[in-house]
Amino acid sequence: MKLKMMYAFLNTDIALIEKELEQSVQTNEPLITEASLHLLQAGGKRIRPVFVLLAGKFGEYNIERVKYVAVALELIHMASLVHDDVIDDADKRRGKPTIKAKWDNRIAMYTGDYIFARSLEMMANIKNVEAHQILSNTMVQLSLGEIEQIKDKYNLDQNLRTYLRRIRRKTALLIAVSCQLGAIATDASKSVHKELYRFGYYVGMAFQITDDILDFTSSAEQLGKPVGSDLLQGNITLPVLFAMENPAFRDKVELLFTAEHKEALIEDIITYIKSSGAIERSLNVSDQYLQKAIDVLDHLPDNKAKKALYQIAKFVGKRKF
Amino acid sequence: MKLKMMYAFLNTDIALIEKELEQSVQTNEPLITEASLHLLQAGGKRIRPVFVLLAGKFGEYNIERVKYVAVALELIHMASLVHDDVIDDADKRRGKPTIKAKWDNRIAMYTGDYIFARSLEMMANIKNVEAHQILSNTMVQLSLGEIEQIKDKYNLDQNLRTYLRRIRRKTALLIAVSCQLGAIATDASKSVHKELYRFGYYVGMAFQITDDILDFTSSAEQLGKPVGSDLLQGNITLPVLFAMENPAFRDKVELLFTAEHKEALIEDIITYIKSSGAIERSLNVSDQYLQKAIDVLDHLPDNKAKKALYQIAKFVGKRKF
Repeated sequence: MKLKMMYAFLNTDIALIEKELEQSVQTNEPLITEASLHLLQAGGKRIRPVFVLLAGKFGEYNIERVKYVAVALELIHMASLVHDDVIDDADKRRGKPTIKAKWDNRIAMYTGDYIFARSLEMMANIKNVEAHQILSNTMVQLSLGEIEQIKDKYNLDQNLRTYLRRIRRKTALLIAVSCQLGAIATDASKSVHKELYRFGYYVGMAFQITDDILDFTSSAEQLGKPVGSDLLQGNITLPVLFAMENPAFRDKVELLFTAEHKEALIEDIITYIKSSGAIERSLNVSDQYLQKAIDVLDHLPDNKAKKALYQIAKFVGKRKF
Repeated sequence: MKLKMMYAFLNTDIALIEKELEQSVQTNEPLITEASLHLLQAGGKRIRPVFVLLAGKFGEYNIERVKYVAVALELIHMASLVHDDVIDDADKRRGKPTIKAKWDNRIAMYTGDYIFARSLEMMANIKNVEAHQILSNTMVQLSLGEIEQIKDKYNLDQNLRTYLRRIRRKTALLIAVSCQLGAIATDASKSVHKELYRFGYYVGMAFQITDDILDFTSSAEQLGKPVGSDLLQGNITLPVLFAMENPAFRDKVELLFTAEHKEALIEDIITYIKSSGAIERSLNVSDQYLQKAIDVLDHLPDNKAKKALYQIAKFVGKRKF
């Protein structure tokens, strides 16, 4: 089943979110609108808005209220991508040149700032103090995670704990909060939005681990960027951590980071990672998170949205791109 | 009279704000704390918190509430300075190396992101939807202003209108909003916080024009950076605009932007600006804004804070650094 089929009942609302996203970056500054639209139209799964809407279904669902949360969270995600691309010195995202590659780092920085600010403007429509506290706290954690990521780059002395902490801040937190805020925006009960937060957190962890696996197992065409890009950019992900239990492989990674011609080396590294069992072990960690996510669903009332969340969790474990 | 003497009755509260500012950047990431404290301890006038507190005096003043607004606005100002220094490629601010010079652009970007997020966390303590709407809208305007500033750099085809629009977004808006939000946080009447907004706006415009004048008339020692730094970084300010009415001078500025050795040229340019009447004409524009600010005060009830605002407005017109 295709991802979109799992929440086909949300189609009208998702189309509305898409329109609101486009409108939200219309300004009198052609440069900023162009840069923002460039990113927006490069696509993306819009997984955060989907989680917001689905979570909203556990309360008094009203698209005119949840839409602000859905748009705000996608904008925050987009803004952090723009700033990430500056850090990663990335030239491509989703098969298109990044803002920093097409324009420059300064434009990327301010486009990110602008998109962040627009997301706050969206959220200001939500008259719930708790929602603002949750969101601002999340943004603090996100920015700390970004700094952490810089520090951890090219750093081979990492372990499972530091990796999990990093992807928690980088990905899981925002998905958890998407679920939580969707429920808060429709006045779902406190116990429901706590469970939804946990669900989002576990799915988010699995989602990022899968992403990190696909960076090695997928094709350049499907990724929209070269295979092994994460490692080439100095990001030590879970498959690399497992593979580095072999000291000879660790030496190879160290060599990769300093080598001038990386092509042959990275191919060699990818081949080893695939044959070492590191992929299977990573998948196993991801599956454990997904099982936890599915267990959480037992605590939630039955409805269409719960069914969709279940299917999405199942999908994350199997996705190929 | 020294600036600080004008609001000596706020001393205890300002000391509290200073402590809160320091606490607000304490994290488990030494890099981010160090970078933030570096900026914080470089000083600055804390003019935004002072305006927040003074404006708060027009309502039911309670430092435990206004402090959140005061800290949030100073943090937003700090964050935008950090990002500005990346754009301006500035190596010094307030006589100290900038974050981007001491660390690098990436650290500066994320330190800015972190400080922005912390300011939102502070503001989330204010349970007033209007305040959040005003603040988020201000942040959108600020980021648009930043993009505008990039576009306008080294661009000689500017006029008074584009200059005023730029400094409105760059400086006046945040000071206006400091006054407005201080009053909102203490539940002052709507008419009061509207007048305070106008007061802040006019003072902010004069403040920035004065800053732009001092860039030419002050000493490197007092500025904490070389005289003429703004122009060297490609920022066309009011004195330059006036002086460029002379085509020969305009040619010189154009030459400066492309010249490899700028030392003699910039000295020559500064001398001309000072002798051309451009400084006096700029001061005149600043004085007009200050007069408007002082006129606004007539609409406000008499109290200690109003007296202080009057003295600050007078001070801005005479300040030498």
